[in-house]
Amino acid sequence: MEFNLYSSVALLSRTPSALDALLRDLPEAWLSANEGEKTWTPIDIVTHYLYTEQVNWMPRARHILEHGETEPFPPFKRFGHLTGPGTKSLPQLLDAFASARAASLSELRSWSLSPSDLARRGQHPALGSTTLAELLSAWTVHDLTHLHQLTRVLAVQYTEAVGPFRKFLGVLHCAGHSAPA
Amino acid sequence: MEFNLYSSVALLSRTPSALDALLRDLPEAWLSANEGEKTWTPIDIVTHYLYTEQVNWMPRARHILEHGETEPFPPFKRFGHLTGPGTKSLPQLLDAFASARAASLSELRSWSLSPSDLARRGQHPALGSTTLAELLSAWTVHDLTHLHQLTRVLAVQYTEAVGPFRKFLGVLHCAGHSAPA
Repeated sequence: MEFNLYSSVALLSRTPSALDALLRDLPEAWLSANEGEKTWTPIDIVTHYLYTEQVNWMPRARHILEHGETEPFPPFKRFGHLTGPGTKSLPQLLDAFASARAASLSELRSWSLSPSDLARRGQHPALGSTTLAELLSAWTVHDLTHLHQLTRVLAVQYTEAVGPFRKFLGVLHCAGHSAPA
Repeated sequence: MEFNLYSSVALLSRTPSALDALLRDLPEAWLSANEGEKTWTPIDIVTHYLYTEQVNWMPRARHILEHGETEPFPPFKRFGHLTGPGTKSLPQLLDAFASARAASLSELRSWSLSPSDLARRGQHPALGSTTLAELLSAWTVHDLTHLHQLTRVLAVQYTEAVGPFRKFLGVLHCAGHSAPA
């Protein structure tokens, strides 16, 4: 499927409410669970959505439109959300992410991007030349990557509890691939 | 994490609204997409949730409480949802699943299961002896398995569109493991 702005916005606009439906007021045992040392909890994942919303996607889209390939995107720390002080509760994180996402999409729509805008190129500091359409596609799949991770983080808590059913439960056979180096 | 009825019900009760938030009114290009021949679309996945809600989880839980290990669970077709006529629209499927799930959880709560009830055993036709707690754990992880699958089905539509970002997007590296044989 080729990139389609309308289809991407449709998915991007749904992520905050999907996270909210799944996580708000979920028992603490789920929210503080992870997959082992240096892996993320559901709260870390929502913090990462909020952090990347603020420092990554729209700033880089703006950078392409303003600078093209004349200067690379400013680098950002993919795991920067883990280094700052975690002062927000989960409900606050969900609310902040929903607001930030709504603002992002409002600005994105206001640009009325043309096919030639979407074909404009920027320089990713690690990945090299990339188009605006590729950046917006990656934003969409990034949302899905961390939903994919979230379902696994929750599921593995019951790896032993499911007993013989483990065989039939695909998510328990996911090796984990949400944050390759 | 050991099985906990309260925690499981908390997750099970959220799945219909998470699916609804993600899928209702999503553009058809996403809803009819799959991962290739004999793989599932998002609509197939919601149909499977509804089908298993009707024929699998609660019927088997009742079976354990009524028959214990004296007779195995009646077999059901794991892919039975793919053989019947698909007459419901996605909004109808989402509504039907939400209603069926609410009814299931209402009945489950009405049983006021004790630890000894949860330790009761039944005979799975393929997996052998299993406890009620294992069955209810598997129900919980089954919800997560198909959410995990759903995020992958959506994401892979953009495998080419993301260009060089593919490297960083974990869900695109998921080999697919949601329905092992």
